[in-house]
Amino acid sequence: MSDRVAPNLISAVDEARHWARLMEMAALGAIPGPTPEEPGVNRACLTPLDRAARRKLIGWGAEIGLAASVDAMGNLFLRHEGTEPSAEPVLTGSHMDTQPNGGRFDGIWGVLAGLEAVQAIRAAGIATRRPIEVVAWTNEEGGRFAPGCMGSMAWSGHAAPDTWDMVIDPEGTTFRAALEQHLAAEADIPRRPLGGRPHAYVECHIEQGPRLEAEGLDIGVVTGIQGSRWFVVELTGKTDHAGTTPLALRHDAVQDMVRAINALNLLTRDPKDVLRFTVGRIEVSPNTSNTVADRVRFTIDLRHPAKEVLLARGDAIAGVVQAAVRDCRVAVTERFHAMPTDFQPEVPAAVERAAAAQGLKALRMASGAFHDAQFLVPVCPTGMIFVPCRDGVSHHPAEYSRPDQLAAGTRVLAATLVDLARG
Amino acid sequence: MSDRVAPNLISAVDEARHWARLMEMAALGAIPGPTPEEPGVNRACLTPLDRAARRKLIGWGAEIGLAASVDAMGNLFLRHEGTEPSAEPVLTGSHMDTQPNGGRFDGIWGVLAGLEAVQAIRAAGIATRRPIEVVAWTNEEGGRFAPGCMGSMAWSGHAAPDTWDMVIDPEGTTFRAALEQHLAAEADIPRRPLGGRPHAYVECHIEQGPRLEAEGLDIGVVTGIQGSRWFVVELTGKTDHAGTTPLALRHDAVQDMVRAINALNLLTRDPKDVLRFTVGRIEVSPNTSNTVADRVRFTIDLRHPAKEVLLARGDAIAGVVQAAVRDCRVAVTERFHAMPTDFQPEVPAAVERAAAAQGLKALRMASGAFHDAQFLVPVCPTGMIFVPCRDGVSHHPAEYSRPDQLAAGTRVLAATLVDLARG
Repeated sequence: MSDRVAPNLISAVDEARHWARLMEMAALGAIPGPTPEEPGVNRACLTPLDRAARRKLIGWGAEIGLAASVDAMGNLFLRHEGTEPSAEPVLTGSHMDTQPNGGRFDGIWGVLAGLEAVQAIRAAGIATRRPIEVVAWTNEEGGRFAPGCMGSMAWSGHAAPDTWDMVIDPEGTTFRAALEQHLAAEADIPRRPLGGRPHAYVECHIEQGPRLEAEGLDIGVVTGIQGSRWFVVELTGKTDHAGTTPLALRHDAVQDMVRAINALNLLTRDPKDVLRFTVGRIEVSPNTSNTVADRVRFTIDLRHPAKEVLLARGDAIAGVVQAAVRDCRVAVTERFHAMPTDFQPEVPAAVERAAAAQGLKALRMASGAFHDAQFLVPVCPTGMIFVPCRDGVSHHPAEYSRPDQLAAGTRVLAATLVDLARG
Repeated sequence: MSDRVAPNLISAVDEARHWARLMEMAALGAIPGPTPEEPGVNRACLTPLDRAARRKLIGWGAEIGLAASVDAMGNLFLRHEGTEPSAEPVLTGSHMDTQPNGGRFDGIWGVLAGLEAVQAIRAAGIATRRPIEVVAWTNEEGGRFAPGCMGSMAWSGHAAPDTWDMVIDPEGTTFRAALEQHLAAEADIPRRPLGGRPHAYVECHIEQGPRLEAEGLDIGVVTGIQGSRWFVVELTGKTDHAGTTPLALRHDAVQDMVRAINALNLLTRDPKDVLRFTVGRIEVSPNTSNTVADRVRFTIDLRHPAKEVLLARGDAIAGVVQAAVRDCRVAVTERFHAMPTDFQPEVPAAVERAAAAQGLKALRMASGAFHDAQFLVPVCPTGMIFVPCRDGVSHHPAEYSRPDQLAAGTRVLAATLVDLARG
């Protein structure tokens, strides 16, 4: 291990090229943003836009000699060969899909940082013992098909790859059908087995919170990820005419949803404001103004850094909802869970060394958002590199990090990869 | 006026033919219902299905010599000529569109009852002094384009025909574009001016409430319609990441919607359970489970038979919502209103006479639902004929009235039309 970084590696990270690639990717799915110069992005997974972004990445990789391959979940890999090709590779990357009203950096920066870091390593003439693979995981956001992180969950063995076959998007397309269509469109790319045992995994990501910016720091050395539990609540009542049915005789799914959310607000009350409770998605049927709704489906997103809190509050949800509703049948289903995760020490230590060697101000911190990295933890030493983002905003067109902030993160990644690929 | 009915008119109403036509119409837009034998219907206005239903109606009319015409709102008329063609016609009919998850009788029965009654009048050899026109009003339900009753509102002068030009359906199509496409598809049907001065209007409809069935009655003699006010509430907050943003810093449109509905439930509390308050439609943006919603749009449907109650509670809505929300900007817009209406006495009297002459058990009652008839009141003497429907259910595939119940209503209509067309 070394606490010095080859100067030619640092200068080989090309801030302008890196930024230009980010902007070129942002054009795929551009939507209006806060200013005409700052568009947002809506690039749902397994769509033609997603495929166009992947093709672009493969092309940039091919230009510098990286070989592409795809697994049965559509996870895409670009391989930089090591001097010892049979050694377990170091893996880096993130995802290319965005939220429906998303920004230009969440996910895609982690993928392009991997590409830029590998390009810099090659340009600097650094031969690594271990191969380095840049990965783009399928469907991290869960915006089209819920939950997110399907690609990394299946790859790491957290869930079977057919778990989400029948999950449908808002148009009624199943995940299975979308994935099959996608794999058919990528049939020319070599197929690789699902899963693997990398030597280490490191993921770059914007912070998605306000802390690094507020404290004037360059790098977040991520030490773990808070836990998440996702639930779907389905209420089934009865449609009735809004003009003729007395309120006492109704089985109104909207009113029972309001009762349930009122009760959940009490259950999730936290004076310290650490517990995160969100109802972000509501679907009403038949959803017309003059008919009493017979069905409502809404989501619950619950997060906390402490496992015992996440378990206690999350396990109480079904009972609280049952007790709160008055007129409808109710079903509460947990669709996803990821307990709080602490990263093993190796990768955070390597990231910290790399940042220190480059004179960057770094802070050890936990991630509030979940990431693909979470599912790599049982597989290999794992870590993440955060950079500041403006006002802590993400999942929104206004999401922004400066070119120099991103390049700094990518330089830390490059040095971290060299360090890990040596071990 | 006569309290006797020609027996050959009564026997000329063919229950089997009438039912067969209803079932043939129900096949246009059939959706699963409570049993395979009892499908529901989803036939949105100004769609190919709506046009197929109108073509079928025109064909049945043509077979018995009725001339079709269409006005600028797409309202469709079939004319039975009177012995005095210049006399103001008697108008009867209803609508052919359904709720998205609707049934086989709401609306379409009123149109087919008009056709069957006219066919019976002609078959019985009864010459009427006044012409009789059967009308199918455009977009009564408001399921695709809100509000409902656009066709009859524009026809009666209640609103200008371009009022709803920019209203969009869930796919983003404007009402204007859908109407233009529809009129182009019906360009072969003679065009008639929008509006008119009929001698009287009478509309057949299923009750959409439980009363006639519960009291073992055959006919509801409708004396008026309770008032309705429709509002749209739009909340604008800010999207944020569900995992990273403390609840205190959020501008969560879903949570403000819950606060608003809680406050509206208090505002609309009515120990007598006469006031009808419904939130039937909710749209959330971006509507993903792991993003705090920045926009919610929800509807309010408020109804009461007393004008002063409707005005007082309805006028308080905007202020109550403003006071209830915490973190979002809010806009409350009234999209539609129809004050409570009492029908003039002429038509209810004629309906009551016809029912009595046929030995049917009739009850004077107000309508809880609104109907196209409401907008005819300022134009001419108006009335409605209700028949029982099972369990009071409507706006649902389980909506049902028996063939004999419907035929009884149609016989009352036939006699009422003969009565009114004489005057």
